[in-house]
Amino acid sequence: MYENRIRKTELEQLIITAEEAAMLFKDKMVVASSGFTKAGDSKAVLMALAERAKIDPLKVTLMTGASLGQGTDGALAEADALSLRLPFQVDPIMRKAINKGEVFFIDQHLGETANLLRANNFPKIDIAILEACLIAEDGSIIPTTSVGNSASFAALAEKVIIELNLSVPLSIRGVHDIFSTGEYPTRRAIPITKANSVIGTDSIAINPDKIVGIVITQKTDSPAEIEAPDAATTAIANHLIGFFNREVAKGNLTKSLLPLQAGIGKVANAVLTGFTHSDFEDLTMYSEVLQDSTFDLLDSGKLLFASGSSITVSQDYYDRIFADFDKYKDRVILRPQDISNAAEVIRRLGIIAINTALECDIYGNVNSTHVSGTHMMNGIGGSGDFARNSYLSIFVTTSVAKGDKISCIVPMVSHVDHCEHDVDIIVTERGLADLRGLAPRQRAQVIIDKCVHPEYQEEMQSYFDRACAERGGQTPHILEEAFSWHTSLRETGSMKKTVMV
Amino acid sequence: MYENRIRKTELEQLIITAEEAAMLFKDKMVVASSGFTKAGDSKAVLMALAERAKIDPLKVTLMTGASLGQGTDGALAEADALSLRLPFQVDPIMRKAINKGEVFFIDQHLGETANLLRANNFPKIDIAILEACLIAEDGSIIPTTSVGNSASFAALAEKVIIELNLSVPLSIRGVHDIFSTGEYPTRRAIPITKANSVIGTDSIAINPDKIVGIVITQKTDSPAEIEAPDAATTAIANHLIGFFNREVAKGNLTKSLLPLQAGIGKVANAVLTGFTHSDFEDLTMYSEVLQDSTFDLLDSGKLLFASGSSITVSQDYYDRIFADFDKYKDRVILRPQDISNAAEVIRRLGIIAINTALECDIYGNVNSTHVSGTHMMNGIGGSGDFARNSYLSIFVTTSVAKGDKISCIVPMVSHVDHCEHDVDIIVTERGLADLRGLAPRQRAQVIIDKCVHPEYQEEMQSYFDRACAERGGQTPHILEEAFSWHTSLRETGSMKKTVMV
Repeated sequence: MYENRIRKTELEQLIITAEEAAMLFKDKMVVASSGFTKAGDSKAVLMALAERAKIDPLKVTLMTGASLGQGTDGALAEADALSLRLPFQVDPIMRKAINKGEVFFIDQHLGETANLLRANNFPKIDIAILEACLIAEDGSIIPTTSVGNSASFAALAEKVIIELNLSVPLSIRGVHDIFSTGEYPTRRAIPITKANSVIGTDSIAINPDKIVGIVITQKTDSPAEIEAPDAATTAIANHLIGFFNREVAKGNLTKSLLPLQAGIGKVANAVLTGFTHSDFEDLTMYSEVLQDSTFDLLDSGKLLFASGSSITVSQDYYDRIFADFDKYKDRVILRPQDISNAAEVIRRLGIIAINTALECDIYGNVNSTHVSGTHMMNGIGGSGDFARNSYLSIFVTTSVAKGDKISCIVPMVSHVDHCEHDVDIIVTERGLADLRGLAPRQRAQVIIDKCVHPEYQEEMQSYFDRACAERGGQTPHILEEAFSWHTSLRETGSMKKTVMV
Repeated sequence: MYENRIRKTELEQLIITAEEAAMLFKDKMVVASSGFTKAGDSKAVLMALAERAKIDPLKVTLMTGASLGQGTDGALAEADALSLRLPFQVDPIMRKAINKGEVFFIDQHLGETANLLRANNFPKIDIAILEACLIAEDGSIIPTTSVGNSASFAALAEKVIIELNLSVPLSIRGVHDIFSTGEYPTRRAIPITKANSVIGTDSIAINPDKIVGIVITQKTDSPAEIEAPDAATTAIANHLIGFFNREVAKGNLTKSLLPLQAGIGKVANAVLTGFTHSDFEDLTMYSEVLQDSTFDLLDSGKLLFASGSSITVSQDYYDRIFADFDKYKDRVILRPQDISNAAEVIRRLGIIAINTALECDIYGNVNSTHVSGTHMMNGIGGSGDFARNSYLSIFVTTSVAKGDKISCIVPMVSHVDHCEHDVDIIVTERGLADLRGLAPRQRAQVIIDKCVHPEYQEEMQSYFDRACAERGGQTPHILEEAFSWHTSLRETGSMKKTVMV
């Protein structure tokens, strides 16, 4: 029964249906759920909560590790069941509700949420929903394809509902490394000194008195949608591989580089794929999300080891990886996201961080989140945790978007997620701007020369030259013109028809 | 001779004059100097270099711990001796040269410089100038009133000039705690678990073969200029003390709070002074600069212990403190700035960070550096190191400046140093905005209600309401109007005469 997955047998009496679990929630509760980039999320209870809210209205705060799969965020938004959502989402229906102001959204560094909770800087969690593949003899749970914030939620929530997912093979046990720094004022150091340091336990302890229900599920994770590399993303990958080759030639790095982090998305995926055909060897990864390209690199032998907080792969890869997970188990670790994204560890290991920008400006500031400065796309995710503390902070973007109606390099970004201090390298398909050791005016010229699309280069040079001549300063800008490209886009549908003031 | 301060006696033969030392520099060299907020800086050699540059032109890169005293930065700028300056400065002449684009300036988190150097992300240092009060038997040096980046400079520079300062009493020996995390890929954890953890040695090791000169000086540090608290800064301090009292009442903090960090300046100083007359007890400090108010708090018995990277005090305090330094020695530690400002330690200890904003916007973004978005004031200093990783990140500013011609809260900051993610609390003399757990639209209303000056409240509310209604989004803005307050200031001398577009 339940495939012998409730090994602390007295807990069997807590088995309930998802619909029964949904009745445990009350209006204004703070709800936490497992789930990180669609992996290891609540697949039954949150959906049942959305159904319940349609007929019996209630609004809760929902925090997760990162994004949910299964269309759950959309269903919750449609049911008007959320007042506040944090720290990340990717759902188009939820996005719309957020941008209308119908759901409040706290966009948060993914490494931050657990720290805020532990610092009492956020209301207490009433109920946590945690996906697990096994409840062990001691009552602790073995997570599934992500760890996310589940360990913190388990420790801090008043009540816990376990979603016991029978579809996840038990061979996954042993991939998780659960560690807590403890509480203020006696927090401990995180003793990770290599990407593959094992520092904790393989399961999440839960006080059994907190468990108010166990829901049995069979649903698999929503598969990742991976776009294949195209000419532009391949060009970006090649610029980066060339850069790393030069750094090795200079003696700044070895052929093993330093541990890699890569954000999700087409460009980052193309970059990782680029390593498969490179001269680099014995690579390691200390990242958030282990993607298709991570497993390609592991299979190729280029990548020795990968540490992250979730395994988020396409269906083919999922089937293949979990058909024989023992093959990967000693080369993969899943950690709590306050450990995978800990400033302390990122700095100590010397991570090479590769993240995607929505837009960059000529001084090196990056917008990762807000379309035209106002509308939320997904969220900052973990990019800020890595960019600030990495050995090298690299941001990638195509030089233009929507045909060439949008220049992804602008005079001034309309929203700042990563300020000039946190950006070492910007790469577009046009070239690579190495900003290390440069003052703002120097950075601007390099970015214009290397990264801006030719359609926009002249106009950008004109802006920069006039800003220097007419206004001057450390960071020359003509404030009343700084957003004129965005305004033009809004009014004419293209940044190209910029009317100079 | 030299008061027995060169205890490795064979080094005595390296004694040279400052003028002779100045001749060791060549055009385009990378020069590093001790000095952190005017404490422990080069007082003879850099000045001699400025003199030399006047008659024998050369331009060098100059990096320090933080700001220099003695008017040195101004003299170097006037002599046209610098091509690039980093990571911080406060000199009015240097500032002018930077804003004209005559000297390039890299504004940098103070905890970052040593990390960049160790990561080979900056050119190698040719000569480092390090102030010391003693050269020990083993050739290591005892720093003076700051540690700053001196330990990293000593390790990484090709050549070293020591400025042996006889004016600093040898009783200071023992206050420094020198520790290095080592090099990639085998960097170590920083084993600090309390503000007063001692983890290193009391002197900085130097390979004696690197030493190319020892210059004897007698000059004392430039005294800090401390402005006395006034009605506005006292009101800010009182709002903060009230907030801490409420946090204690709620059980979020104890009466010892958590270790404090305070930026330099009038407001931060007033806040620290406010603690002297409070109910808090057994406070600790883990900060950068130990100021007059730090020693007042130590004397009052309220503060048990203070850790920083420099002692920067006014003349009276200097005389008093160093007349009997043994009184403070077991209650004060000076650390390298990559340790005092380490993300790792700031997060682990749970620092309460109090820093000064130049301007804030309604969504909680902070500008600490750029007047009207273009002109550098001083630099970001260590505020970013603390704000990002602290337990609580607090920014203080008066609600208006220049009479009330400038509102320090604006629709959108003209330069982002600390993004919305890094700001928990904003305090003006009007009130305290607690932004924890709030989405951007919620933050805006709290900031308008609590922090904005009445002269500007109506107009700000109008901007926010129209931005929500006309544009919407996660972070509503009317981009073409976002800087209209700054434009108005530029055109009319006041933000009050804002012409709404």
